[in-house]
Amino acid sequence: MKNELPYDLVRTLLAVVDEGTFDAAAAVLHVTPSAVSQRVKALEQRTGRVLLTRTRPVRATDSGQVVVRYARQLARLEGDARAELGMDGGPATASPTRLAIAVNADSLSTWFVPALASLAEDAHLYLDLRREDEAHTTELLREGEVLAAVTSSPDPVAGCSVRRLGAMRYLPVATPAFAARWRSGPPAHWVPRAPLVCFDRRDDLQDAFARDLTGGQPASPLRHYVPSSEGFAQAVTAGLGWGLVPEEQALLGLHSGALARLLPGHTLDVPLFWQQWRLDSPALFTVAAAIAEAAGRSLR
Amino acid sequence: MKNELPYDLVRTLLAVVDEGTFDAAAAVLHVTPSAVSQRVKALEQRTGRVLLTRTRPVRATDSGQVVVRYARQLARLEGDARAELGMDGGPATASPTRLAIAVNADSLSTWFVPALASLAEDAHLYLDLRREDEAHTTELLREGEVLAAVTSSPDPVAGCSVRRLGAMRYLPVATPAFAARWRSGPPAHWVPRAPLVCFDRRDDLQDAFARDLTGGQPASPLRHYVPSSEGFAQAVTAGLGWGLVPEEQALLGLHSGALARLLPGHTLDVPLFWQQWRLDSPALFTVAAAIAEAAGRSLR
Repeated sequence: MKNELPYDLVRTLLAVVDEGTFDAAAAVLHVTPSAVSQRVKALEQRTGRVLLTRTRPVRATDSGQVVVRYARQLARLEGDARAELGMDGGPATASPTRLAIAVNADSLSTWFVPALASLAEDAHLYLDLRREDEAHTTELLREGEVLAAVTSSPDPVAGCSVRRLGAMRYLPVATPAFAARWRSGPPAHWVPRAPLVCFDRRDDLQDAFARDLTGGQPASPLRHYVPSSEGFAQAVTAGLGWGLVPEEQALLGLHSGALARLLPGHTLDVPLFWQQWRLDSPALFTVAAAIAEAAGRSLR
Repeated sequence: MKNELPYDLVRTLLAVVDEGTFDAAAAVLHVTPSAVSQRVKALEQRTGRVLLTRTRPVRATDSGQVVVRYARQLARLEGDARAELGMDGGPATASPTRLAIAVNADSLSTWFVPALASLAEDAHLYLDLRREDEAHTTELLREGEVLAAVTSSPDPVAGCSVRRLGAMRYLPVATPAFAARWRSGPPAHWVPRAPLVCFDRRDDLQDAFARDLTGGQPASPLRHYVPSSEGFAQAVTAGLGWGLVPEEQALLGLHSGALARLLPGHTLDVPLFWQQWRLDSPALFTVAAAIAEAAGRSLR
């Protein structure tokens, strides 16, 4: 494989995909945009495939993603080897290694980032986090866009290992005034009618919860879309609708009286898993251990 | 125009774009997927253009976006007229009107949503918020994806009015330990070297700030990408890098001692504008007034 895919060409392709344009890749690689273009063409001739869409930003084609995935593994392994050999001459001259990880929005806004405080001491390892719905993070793993992912899928992507992190608990909450206005009779009566807040159109947490409660009916079509974790909690706190709020955020509102539990005793637990490529990488190992440890404290 | 673009066909196209698939649109419209498909084809025959890409989710083509924009204006005006005529027979039977608004992530996580608490009393108006970089929200306006936007651009999109909301103030902060380790000598010496946190690859706030300070040098290539407003503040608080944090969030950390100002006296003000389509819509007017009022309190 090495003869067919020279390292400088592969690394150039990766830079173009990561930076989004030929010009930006050229700046990072300290070469001219024309050299970048020639290297990508050379790689396409060698592989006999179109590897990039010439859009802004450029995107890897299906064939391109195979090469990108290979390039990321090479870069990861080289970064680890350089670190072990002490070749990174101090923080100022180290070439940073990026660890691309997909994380669901609620984890990214609550327990995930503080778990990585230990990386502050590591001058050659940098995070490249992608926010993605927990049911869709595995797509990014499969495409080789990320090395690891926090996902709701326990089924390992080909080439990946999987480990259970615990469950994120959500509480159905609303303002006391909202509860007084909408909650009357059994859940099957009011849950399909009461306005709610959803994160975005991919968010089916509330509908799944409603179906369980009502024997199959989804939540109301009267719904606000608020694609931000704090914005979501703020929308519920403002009385725009009910919603499933992560326990940590919900408890703040419950203690202050701004929120009320809509269905005492009912919660929704979303199991989360850590999937990562099978790579003998000390950096990835370090991050995975920190995440597992924090998940043990923060999740159920 | 009415004869050429029958309302039921236009509304069907809008439902397909909003819901993402023919099946989902069919469920919302209470017709069969086959009927949805036939209506879209009929509309394409009438206009002589392909209006949708048959992808999952489907997307409007350039021609499709023109029709979508027209459809949203019709829906908005119809919703307003129904409300004025008292035709919405109570919350349970009202057909909800969606107000699609693009908002930059930091606004969406701080002052924007609480400003809309008054909508909780309005049973026929629902928010469809889109999170987008403040420099790119105008694209969504131009494409007709949203009716209004919080944007950094004072130049009105064709057909839109623009109004200044105020400036969002950012403070350059880091942990005290980070400041002690990296900050030595003039900014031109250490700012281009110190690791930092960026929101994503579109976020050039830190680079623009660094260029101003150093006479042209961008911030360090040693950077973490954390695409979440709270995650961003958490990453800075964890010591992963310095970053420009919205004043409201930064002050919490400064008061507790978790954060320190990196360059006392230096701040970055990002002016924000409200752009909206020129529509005689009471609902849009109500929302715009609430946003302007909240911006007056929260922004500079």
